[in-house]
Amino acid sequence: MKLVTYRASVEAAARLGVVVDDLVVDVEALGKTFGEDLPDTMLGLIDAGRPGLEALQASLDGAEGRFAPGTATALSNVRLMAPIPRPRKNIYGIGLNFVEHVAESARSLDTAKDLPKQPIVFTKPPTAVIGPGEGIEHNRKMTQQLDWEVELAVIIGSAAKHVSKADALKHVFGYSVMIDVSARDNRRAGQWIFSKGQDTYAPFGPCIVTADEIPDPQVLDLWLTVNGVEKQRSNTRHMLFKVDDLIADISTGMTLEPGDVIASGTPEGVGAGRSPQEFLWPGDVVVACVEGIGTLRHPVVDATPA
Amino acid sequence: MKLVTYRASVEAAARLGVVVDDLVVDVEALGKTFGEDLPDTMLGLIDAGRPGLEALQASLDGAEGRFAPGTATALSNVRLMAPIPRPRKNIYGIGLNFVEHVAESARSLDTAKDLPKQPIVFTKPPTAVIGPGEGIEHNRKMTQQLDWEVELAVIIGSAAKHVSKADALKHVFGYSVMIDVSARDNRRAGQWIFSKGQDTYAPFGPCIVTADEIPDPQVLDLWLTVNGVEKQRSNTRHMLFKVDDLIADISTGMTLEPGDVIASGTPEGVGAGRSPQEFLWPGDVVVACVEGIGTLRHPVVDATPA
Repeated sequence: MKLVTYRASVEAAARLGVVVDDLVVDVEALGKTFGEDLPDTMLGLIDAGRPGLEALQASLDGAEGRFAPGTATALSNVRLMAPIPRPRKNIYGIGLNFVEHVAESARSLDTAKDLPKQPIVFTKPPTAVIGPGEGIEHNRKMTQQLDWEVELAVIIGSAAKHVSKADALKHVFGYSVMIDVSARDNRRAGQWIFSKGQDTYAPFGPCIVTADEIPDPQVLDLWLTVNGVEKQRSNTRHMLFKVDDLIADISTGMTLEPGDVIASGTPEGVGAGRSPQEFLWPGDVVVACVEGIGTLRHPVVDATPA
Repeated sequence: MKLVTYRASVEAAARLGVVVDDLVVDVEALGKTFGEDLPDTMLGLIDAGRPGLEALQASLDGAEGRFAPGTATALSNVRLMAPIPRPRKNIYGIGLNFVEHVAESARSLDTAKDLPKQPIVFTKPPTAVIGPGEGIEHNRKMTQQLDWEVELAVIIGSAAKHVSKADALKHVFGYSVMIDVSARDNRRAGQWIFSKGQDTYAPFGPCIVTADEIPDPQVLDLWLTVNGVEKQRSNTRHMLFKVDDLIADISTGMTLEPGDVIASGTPEGVGAGRSPQEFLWPGDVVVACVEGIGTLRHPVVDATPA
């Protein structure tokens, strides 16, 4: 299933929807048609676990593509939001997780040229999240090095502590796309949250594809363009630490919880790694895609304070 | 006011209380006595803003130290929890924020010996929080360098973005104590969340003292003992970046929100900085205090997985 959080109009409340062809079907309303008590938020559905997904699937199957009035809206007529508009904790990010990106970072930034022996974990706060189409803020007083990174986002479905690599993917609810925006000139003694955690630096969406539809997350093409020019293109098979490695590793120390998001790292082609370096400026448009999930399109907007 | 989150018995739900002499007064129940609709959680009270605090103070004043049956419990008979048992995002931590600690860290860890020019920001996830008396987990398979750091914790009361240093303290709800526990041997390419973010690595409490009672947060003694032996003793006047600096700085890039927690950095005397180095092991007891707020006491417990 392809799940979204959406507004049916600008003033409408955020709703949980499931995409069926070119329609967004309201999950709670769909459930009511079939006497099922289905949730109205993505976190509610994640918390409902496998029974929640099964009840939703049963209602969808029962509908046979015909939806009661008020239950479905044309996808083109809704405003998509980040699938989890407000994560319950900071997003986990993974640094230097593609071989070629390790090399380009060592050339242009202050990172080591050796491949990391363990995942490098950092975070982005919930305040960084924006939904599809929203502006990535450029504060000229803060940065002259605003950079892009397309990433596969992993959404955790059930609590994980000390899980084995073999069991790790059982804890995945689904997958999405995230752009890990960075102000490269805002790193501080190596700590990345200030450079990667600023408001609007985590474009997220456009949907979550449930894990059953992506049995192998390591075969997905991902790419990013700036103003229509391709800057990144790779495949998740080139990840140093695979999704199961990341879940197993993080859970050795930190309990992963339902609704947690892991941005799994970016391939080569970031602005800081190019020669000459390129960065984002107001008016630019960034488009990022992970195959089989969807595409994010974000303008860069001037947000320099007075 | 001295505010706590507590359970009146092991099975009881968490409640918001205000400490009056040797009593914990249930805030919601107190309000009912006076026809006031007061919140039953710390985050609820923070979200209620100044009017919420004023209504609570009015009810307290009205009670004149006499509380209806069932409203007050002896402080010695309740189980205190972390004042915010589940923060809404990762806790902001500040690295290398006391001069002497910068020096000891440069000698013993991989940090620079120069004083940082800007605050060094990292985070600890909500899953790291434990309440007074709970065990700090020692996983022998993970670390042989479990270390202590006593810190003044700052609790944000109102949203702050691009606030000036002069206005910064107006955004503080109150102050508490946090022990910033680290597994020094779990740093990864310099990123600190894995070493500082593990489950139980953020003992927090025992209360929040409201900001009106601490007009100057830069005059507070703070100290820490291990097994009764003093390891850290300093005063918040030695902080490199003061609380107002930290709020002004973080808010240049990241919106601070009601209920956010900032652990403001530790003075010299950590285990890694001693000669010879000392670390925490199961059976040790760590006690940490910030003057005028309260004392945390935590055993270190073996939590090595099978």
